[in-house]
Amino acid sequence: MTDIDRLADRLRSFAAERNWEQFHTPKNLAMALTGEAGELLAEFQWLTPEESSTVLHDQAAGDRVRAELGDVFLYAVRLADVLGIDLLQVAYDKLAENERRYDADAYRGTARKAPPLS
Amino acid sequence: MTDIDRLADRLRSFAAERNWEQFHTPKNLAMALTGEAGELLAEFQWLTPEESSTVLHDQAAGDRVRAELGDVFLYAVRLADVLGIDLLQVAYDKLAENERRYDADAYRGTARKAPPLS
Amino acid sequence: MTDIDRLADRLRSFAAERNWEQFHTPKNLAMALTGEAGELLAEFQWLTPEESSTVLHDQAAGDRVRAELGDVFLYAVRLADVLGIDLLQVAYDKLAENERRYDADAYRGTARKAPPLS
Amino acid sequence: MTDIDRLADRLRSFAAERNWEQFHTPKNLAMALTGEAGELLAEFQWLTPEESSTVLHDQAAGDRVRAELGDVFLYAVRLADVLGIDLLQVAYDKLAENERRYDADAYRGTARKAPPLS
Repeated sequence: MTDIDRLADRLRSFAAERNWEQFHTPKNLAMALTGEAGELLAEFQWLTPEESSTVLHDQAAGDRVRAELGDVFLYAVRLADVLGIDLLQVAYDKLAENERRYDADAYRGTARKAPPLS
Repeated sequence: MTDIDRLADRLRSFAAERNWEQFHTPKNLAMALTGEAGELLAEFQWLTPEESSTVLHDQAAGDRVRAELGDVFLYAVRLADVLGIDLLQVAYDKLAENERRYDADAYRGTARKAPPLS
Repeated sequence: MTDIDRLADRLRSFAAERNWEQFHTPKNLAMALTGEAGELLAEFQWLTPEESSTVLHDQAAGDRVRAELGDVFLYAVRLADVLGIDLLQVAYDKLAENERRYDADAYRGTARKAPPLS
Repeated sequence: MTDIDRLADRLRSFAAERNWEQFHTPKNLAMALTGEAGELLAEFQWLTPEESSTVLHDQAAGDRVRAELGDVFLYAVRLADVLGIDLLQVAYDKLAENERRYDADAYRGTARKAPPLS
């Protein structure tokens, strides 16, 4: 049993104990995931690229970033679990595709023309 | 070493081999994460809640959902790694907070009034 | 001068008076726009489709939806202004494209297969 | 009749002719709006702040930015229309609130601490 499986289990219990499975449709969970990503994004919107690298130096901002990244991950795990998707597997599949698609020599230093990771 | 650590390692190599660390500021990665969440969201936008539960029955839609959820997870892992955040830890921290905040008896079946998970 | 031009003017003054033009790069404004869209989205995430249609019946939720939709529009107007884009024109251009692309007879009632508007 | 009213009218006809009103619940339209905002965001994710200011100099990127900003605006107008919200009014209401909240002297040049516009 992986770390992600264990977390998925705990989220399943969390939802069941509150009778919240009815709200956890894939549609709703995708909304919640994106809403949390938007909150995370907002933490960085007025920062320069350099300031964004030291965002954790500010205690309050750091706490918010950690909480929002935690939320994003929780919803990703929950959504994958509800759909029966192996989160780790689809990530490795996508990464393998990117490794083929973005040849290291051809794309060196040119992320702008070709988005990295996806 | 956890599964997430291993994936973070692979992403670190992926970025290094392409000299893409320069693009992977927390600001840019939060943008990429949210952009991918938005693509995932778009897969569900015209579906009824019921249809969203069987989205994987359609091969093409299923492939897109898997790829986009993979992307979201990859960027979450990469962002956490760049910031030095333990993704599993912040998820468990947030979940523990939610378990305290949303008492199972008080909130049973009332997600609308109190957003679950976050 | 259109209504949107007038609003863009007021936002330009608002930014200038606070010396905030430095923060209003297209990159940052696209982030702010998406962050506000995410907040708007969160208002609807646990609602059924039917409940979403009567969201304004709840005074507090209605106030939030109005404020967030106002924010989305403000940032869209500001981003268009900073880039020198005519917001009304690009909307009509896109709509004309959609009218051609989604033939009314062929696509009647089939939004799922072909996303409406875009 | 304002420019926005005219555009809302055209969108109403567009949806009616395709029998797409059934898909245009506020919930679904908020999803579509956010999905389009995410696509717009993705255009800027690997750009430096400076590069983002000249994004229209590249014809292909410029066309995508214009189309995506058009989409965002179309969905904002459609969502407001379906909910019976006056988009221009809620924008001015929010702007007036921001003018009060962010005193020009107190907040000059400090957007980071206090997000501008919202």
